[in-house]
Amino acid sequence: MTYTAQVKVMPLKELLDPQGKAVLGGFQNLGLNSIRDVRIGKNITLQIEAETPESAHQLAEEAAKKLLANQVMEMFEVTIS
Amino acid sequence: MTYTAQVKVMPLKELLDPQGKAVLGGFQNLGLNSIRDVRIGKNITLQIEAETPESAHQLAEEAAKKLLANQVMEMFEVTIS
Repeated sequence: MTYTAQVKVMPLKELLDPQGKAVLGGFQNLGLNSIRDVRIGKNITLQIEAETPESAHQLAEEAAKKLLANQVMEMFEVTIS
Repeated sequence: MTYTAQVKVMPLKELLDPQGKAVLGGFQNLGLNSIRDVRIGKNITLQIEAETPESAHQLAEEAAKKLLANQVMEMFEVTIS
């Protein structure tokens, strides 16, 4: 069966996010002053061929660790649907 | 009150996603052959100062339309938590 996995990769809370800071500046220039903070990460959708949702989840985690996320600077979250 | 908005921006289904295709090739090189398709988008977390969750949602949509998503090539989804 084919499962859809969503992998959300975000910069760690402890680290600066210069891309987010730049976008925050953009919002202030646009007058959207009630936006206080912006953090930007990636969202990856995988189509995985697997027997069970559990094995699809495991495979998506392996994919995230090996290629999608840099765990020194980023955290990730996998959800299967 | 401060609300957290998640804005998920993904390339439209009808369009090619060259970045996703490149990552799919990477998975095949790593031997992760049960991954059939990859699409890569952005995930943006906003901290919004607003009176109600509804007004925070509206503001996040405005932010997505004005700056975060290019609606010619991308779709977006806003969730407030």
